[in-house]
Amino acid sequence: MPQRRPTLAEIAQEAGVSVPTVSKVLNGRLDVAAETRRQVERLLEQHRYQPRRHRDDRTVGLIDLVFLDLGSPWSMAILDGVEEVTHEAGFGIVVSAVHDRSRTRPGRKWLDNLQARNSDGVVLVLSELSAAQHAQLDALGIPVVVVDPVGDLAKDVPAVGATNWAGGVAATEHLIGLGHRRIATLSGPPDVMCSRARVDGYRSAMRDAGLAVPDDYVRYGDFLLDTGRTETAALLELPEPPTAIFAGSDQMARGAYGALFDRGLRVPDDVSVIGFDDLPEALWATPPLTTVRQPLRDMAQMAARMLLDLVGGDRPETTRVEMATRLVERSSTAPPKG
Amino acid sequence: MPQRRPTLAEIAQEAGVSVPTVSKVLNGRLDVAAETRRQVERLLEQHRYQPRRHRDDRTVGLIDLVFLDLGSPWSMAILDGVEEVTHEAGFGIVVSAVHDRSRTRPGRKWLDNLQARNSDGVVLVLSELSAAQHAQLDALGIPVVVVDPVGDLAKDVPAVGATNWAGGVAATEHLIGLGHRRIATLSGPPDVMCSRARVDGYRSAMRDAGLAVPDDYVRYGDFLLDTGRTETAALLELPEPPTAIFAGSDQMARGAYGALFDRGLRVPDDVSVIGFDDLPEALWATPPLTTVRQPLRDMAQMAARMLLDLVGGDRPETTRVEMATRLVERSSTAPPKG
Repeated sequence: MPQRRPTLAEIAQEAGVSVPTVSKVLNGRLDVAAETRRQVERLLEQHRYQPRRHRDDRTVGLIDLVFLDLGSPWSMAILDGVEEVTHEAGFGIVVSAVHDRSRTRPGRKWLDNLQARNSDGVVLVLSELSAAQHAQLDALGIPVVVVDPVGDLAKDVPAVGATNWAGGVAATEHLIGLGHRRIATLSGPPDVMCSRARVDGYRSAMRDAGLAVPDDYVRYGDFLLDTGRTETAALLELPEPPTAIFAGSDQMARGAYGALFDRGLRVPDDVSVIGFDDLPEALWATPPLTTVRQPLRDMAQMAARMLLDLVGGDRPETTRVEMATRLVERSSTAPPKG
Repeated sequence: MPQRRPTLAEIAQEAGVSVPTVSKVLNGRLDVAAETRRQVERLLEQHRYQPRRHRDDRTVGLIDLVFLDLGSPWSMAILDGVEEVTHEAGFGIVVSAVHDRSRTRPGRKWLDNLQARNSDGVVLVLSELSAAQHAQLDALGIPVVVVDPVGDLAKDVPAVGATNWAGGVAATEHLIGLGHRRIATLSGPPDVMCSRARVDGYRSAMRDAGLAVPDDYVRYGDFLLDTGRTETAALLELPEPPTAIFAGSDQMARGAYGALFDRGLRVPDDVSVIGFDDLPEALWATPPLTTVRQPLRDMAQMAARMLLDLVGGDRPETTRVEMATRLVERSSTAPPKG
């Protein structure tokens, strides 16, 4: 059996330097002190460290697909899209989830395993890597593509998202067009990029229409049903409750339905609700949910294709892609009463 | 890089014998003609064919997880359960789907890739292998565990299912207990084991209660929403339509809702509906769906544990497990009118 290659972290530790420094040496960068460079090069040689070669000398390809959380149908659409592309190209997908719920990054062992199984590339979904992890993958020649970035990404990390800001604008303009003036939004976590973009789209459309956004009208949750329910309940307690709610996910919209039904209010007669995602569940709701559709399968396929290009040695010209969202009108929105 | 091992199929072809014959030679079975045995042994030696060794000489473990179809939340619950167990044990999961929709078996290339990536074991979900594929994996020492078998399995293939028959009985008895006499069932495909068991449970409960099952009352679909809708529409055209419907999946139950709403009929006032699965969507429906819960995550975890035991060289005493289904009463069933 082949011996395990030392990880860059191990070499960095032995040399008493950081992983990015080892990475710089490997990539022939000049901004490393001569003494340090010689020491690192000695260790790399000693450990017979070899950067990965291209996959044409391999018999099988593997792509790692890392989710923040596997438990949602959202994840299923992504997996389905990635699998379709990688299957055609003859690659297997190794699926994993970030198990430490307090973080958005895969643990240290993940990167060791990735190397050990000789993975060709990584698709990250709503999860992120530390700068050291990025540097390590970079030095190993393992490309990364991000679907729906969580935080700000370094400029050179390829990423595929949806037009979240435009989707927020479209949802809010739809409600304004129906005559609503008091429109609130239920957002996902404020530190997640896609969530911030949707709220900004909402604010922008409200501003354009000359409508006020009271602080109480922007509420944060976790994209899941329960926070949609509790935040809607809080909205309904306000002296001036909204007549329409733009939810940052279909699940939060379904939570809003629950809070409204609890108080005997009807959708859309009493309050209009619009979601974001267009998951299959949106069709199960009564009334069927008007929502902003994210092309999740297309996004996943695009990310997989970009990754396979990178694995094959091609550098795509554009490394940031946003795929169009679109409003899907069903029956949960109507003009306000009176 | 290590050279690809020849597949058993290649050796069988070269020897002019079947894969099971090569497998018998590898396993030291005596029911092979001496001449054939010598020839196969010569080829195995010539190709330096080695049965796989145990994983303690490996740095990373991989489990293959094969779905018939990735597109359902049902698959997500299974993936989530398997991933939790394999992650703890330090194994990666390679996920794939059977892409040829006309079949329930992964293609020939899948087995080659499985060998090339040195996978330790296989979990099959609602998919199956040919006898030759089973023999090949057996000879390679790669164990297989099946979740929710599609067809009849050879006696020695370990499998984890749900108590589908008992679930069919429980659903039907619940409806009978409410006073229903005209009860129909919407089943999945008649050649899928879990589907057949549910229908048999329904028939058994009806027989016990002395109730007739007209042929028209047993209708077959594909577990998905659309066939639930069309088969319910057909039921409503009957001279004596049912007052209650036992659907073989939550999605078919939701299809039944649709067909009933189309005709202005209410659930459960006019017709009671009960599902099977208890997917997250069941909570999105209005009224919330009464259903038979399958412990999908538990089934997946059990299958993963059985597989890891087999990979570790343990032979479990019991290789067939059925995990209990249970009736979850919500609001879609009520006594019949009048």
